[in-house]
Amino acid sequence: MVVSINHPDFAALRINGARLMNTLHSTCDQFGAAHRYGSDPTETGMARLSLNDDDKAVRLWLVEQVTALGCKVTIDQMGNIFAVRAGKINDVAPVMMGSHLDTQPTGGRYDGILGVLAGLEVLRTLHENDYATEGPVGLVNWTNEEGARFPMITMASGVWAGSIPLEAAWACVEVTPLTDGSEPKTVKQELERIGFLGDVPASYKANLIAAHFELHIEQGPILEDEGQRIGVVTGAQGYSWYEVTVIGRDSHAGTTPLSARKDALLAAARMVAASNHVARRAKGFITTGRFDVEPGSVNTVAKKVTFTLDVRHPENSSKVDMVAECRVVFDRIAKEECRSGMEVHWKTLAETDATVFPENCIRMVEDSAEVVCGRLKGTPQGRKLWRRMLSGAGHDSCHVNKRCPTAMIFTPTRGGMSHTPDEYCSPGDCVLGTQVLLGAVLRYDANRKR
Amino acid sequence: MVVSINHPDFAALRINGARLMNTLHSTCDQFGAAHRYGSDPTETGMARLSLNDDDKAVRLWLVEQVTALGCKVTIDQMGNIFAVRAGKINDVAPVMMGSHLDTQPTGGRYDGILGVLAGLEVLRTLHENDYATEGPVGLVNWTNEEGARFPMITMASGVWAGSIPLEAAWACVEVTPLTDGSEPKTVKQELERIGFLGDVPASYKANLIAAHFELHIEQGPILEDEGQRIGVVTGAQGYSWYEVTVIGRDSHAGTTPLSARKDALLAAARMVAASNHVARRAKGFITTGRFDVEPGSVNTVAKKVTFTLDVRHPENSSKVDMVAECRVVFDRIAKEECRSGMEVHWKTLAETDATVFPENCIRMVEDSAEVVCGRLKGTPQGRKLWRRMLSGAGHDSCHVNKRCPTAMIFTPTRGGMSHTPDEYCSPGDCVLGTQVLLGAVLRYDANRKR
Ligand SMILES: NC(=O)NCCC(=O)O
Ligand SMILES: NC(=O)NCCC(=O)O
Repeated sequence: MVVSINHPDFAALRINGARLMNTLHSTCDQFGAAHRYGSDPTETGMARLSLNDDDKAVRLWLVEQVTALGCKVTIDQMGNIFAVRAGKINDVAPVMMGSHLDTQPTGGRYDGILGVLAGLEVLRTLHENDYATEGPVGLVNWTNEEGARFPMITMASGVWAGSIPLEAAWACVEVTPLTDGSEPKTVKQELERIGFLGDVPASYKANLIAAHFELHIEQGPILEDEGQRIGVVTGAQGYSWYEVTVIGRDSHAGTTPLSARKDALLAAARMVAASNHVARRAKGFITTGRFDVEPGSVNTVAKKVTFTLDVRHPENSSKVDMVAECRVVFDRIAKEECRSGMEVHWKTLAETDATVFPENCIRMVEDSAEVVCGRLKGTPQGRKLWRRMLSGAGHDSCHVNKRCPTAMIFTPTRGGMSHTPDEYCSPGDCVLGTQVLLGAVLRYDANRKR
Repeated sequence: MVVSINHPDFAALRINGARLMNTLHSTCDQFGAAHRYGSDPTETGMARLSLNDDDKAVRLWLVEQVTALGCKVTIDQMGNIFAVRAGKINDVAPVMMGSHLDTQPTGGRYDGILGVLAGLEVLRTLHENDYATEGPVGLVNWTNEEGARFPMITMASGVWAGSIPLEAAWACVEVTPLTDGSEPKTVKQELERIGFLGDVPASYKANLIAAHFELHIEQGPILEDEGQRIGVVTGAQGYSWYEVTVIGRDSHAGTTPLSARKDALLAAARMVAASNHVARRAKGFITTGRFDVEPGSVNTVAKKVTFTLDVRHPENSSKVDMVAECRVVFDRIAKEECRSGMEVHWKTLAETDATVFPENCIRMVEDSAEVVCGRLKGTPQGRKLWRRMLSGAGHDSCHVNKRCPTAMIFTPTRGGMSHTPDEYCSPGDCVLGTQVLLGAVLRYDANRKR
């Protein structure tokens, strides 16, 4: 079936849901499955850390698949894999579908992987239908989105967008524990080792993209809680990550009167509790995920505590205000906890602004969601199965959006649970999301002609 | 000079302060000095972990010293070293001076060490003065008071008192990190290796003690703050150690609404802050010294936190009340922090009741302190330089007190700082405390005759 551009009847193009799910599970089984949590063969999580042997293997597999579809494959200096299927006109930049194949050390089968394999499924569908797009359409696998092995999240889309210097990314050293006693490797060493250090510059200037659509699991509970199946993502919160260090004085837990203590742990605990109040009042998010104590002995008042703050808000200015309020409150707590005061030091670990996707891309996703969800049987009249929403998390799309129109599609995530082996998005939702992706991409493609 | 029992003129017996301090510093220099903090040769801390090579060497040295004084040396099954100097009558149990020669991994030169070397100095003073005590008088070095390498504090005095089973102590495995890749050792293996696995039962039944006096640094700031030089210790707080585990659910810090979280870290932080209020109201102590987070990632809401509580109060019933109040408050916080509640588990790590030393022993210390301090030049008339006080910390004397009359003498501790390399008690205070120890022991000895 060839759909003419004059009759963009791509709503009739159906992705192959069984093939999508088989591809997802068989590649997860082969390349990095870990952490079994149930008896079904698919009930494992993943440990496909960026640029490890499993990542290498799944990349080689992906290149083989897209080559078989007639795509042109480009590997850039960051190992980003671009696979482009020609359109009727080929002197324009491709509309890309992108996400990442790497996972957390205790990750699941959907975060990132679904987005890349959904893109592959769209390309396969176009291919088997001999569908001629207006311009080129393609797929990109962004290197090291997770930042788990190499601690720089959404690394290679950041380099592509010019937000992260290539040399800084290349020099990033792995942090995951090495059990074989070998020296920790850099990104560049590992790109070289697995054969994915390309020579095309990792840059939006060298590798143009016309528009970028990313399907991703929501990683939160909103769609599930509201009984909706597609999130039309309008942007993402910015986040600021800090490491706060409180310096007190170690002393004996049995002999030091409370009034003579400089208890860094007590002060830090009060700061964590207070930061949560700041977040609630501002309708934002503040999370402490790490909390390290020195010396860490039952009967010794702690001398030093280092804890992290992950601060997010859809409004940049509110995020800044929340941080400012925390600084004031933490200083007050440090003074309240001991007459002579305690030192409080802040170190910025990461800082990103909020992302706003352009309305035209959001509209492509929304139109596609409307048509695809409208076809579903058994939906009560007038009940919308999609909603606009903001991404709580950062994604490759946030970097990409700085250089080309971008939007995202979210699918429900069981219990809102992500970055955990039993992360789950139902086959029905994976298929629905992929169909919405196809519709959004072909709408964007058709639109650029008219 | 021989002092007859009818004229207990032991107030004239003066310990040799220079010898005491030389012995203390030269043995610290030779056996386990570590953590230099200043340029003076004595400005290091100690890392003389129980039953390590330095502990072995200082034990051999001690045995040599007391043997040279004509003492009879007994090593029991726990490696406790008893050195007894004969008196006029020798079919009675000895009055012992006791403390410990082991230290924390980042310990100082005074905690424990001062008490043993003060006892040695008293024996040397008796010896060089040919002083004939009524009954035998001796010195005991208790094995593994610190519980730092083998995690069971006041271990061998506990076995002697029948409070800790011998087999449990023997089987205790070291926890300090091993850098040479060898298997962690048990107490019994290490006693054997260093040649201090004696065959005399480690028991108050086999090795009788008539009374036990321990000189120790206060390890807290009270004496220094009040400008006093001797603490007449009337007993010790009991302590209860717990490990509290809060089980929440890990989720994404950017995508999980605050209302949908089960943030174990936030709940635990609020519990720590609340436990401090419980302690303040009850005029007791509650300290959290350890706080371990899983998974411990910046952008992941914590799934599990394990923290410790060190709960102390001079009154056993108040300690019990404080714990009960914490249980109620923690359960309330766990419910407040998430609709479906979070699990809170308590595990008891250690539990001791408050210790009350018998008045007759306390009086011996007080009388001695009065005489010794009264001799000091330049003290304003009517200004007392000693005070009765409670020990905040546990000591070997707390176990020993269950089986024989016991009391303790405290000396000031600079800044109240202990279990740290720059722990410090001035030479003047060390000497004064040792002189008070001599007076207390000889008073008890003289008294048992009359
Ligand atoms: N999607 C995702 O987990 N991104 C990681 C960065 C973040 O914490 O938002
Ligand atoms: N003296 C001393 O530090 N004992 C250890 C046990 C305690 O914490 O009280």
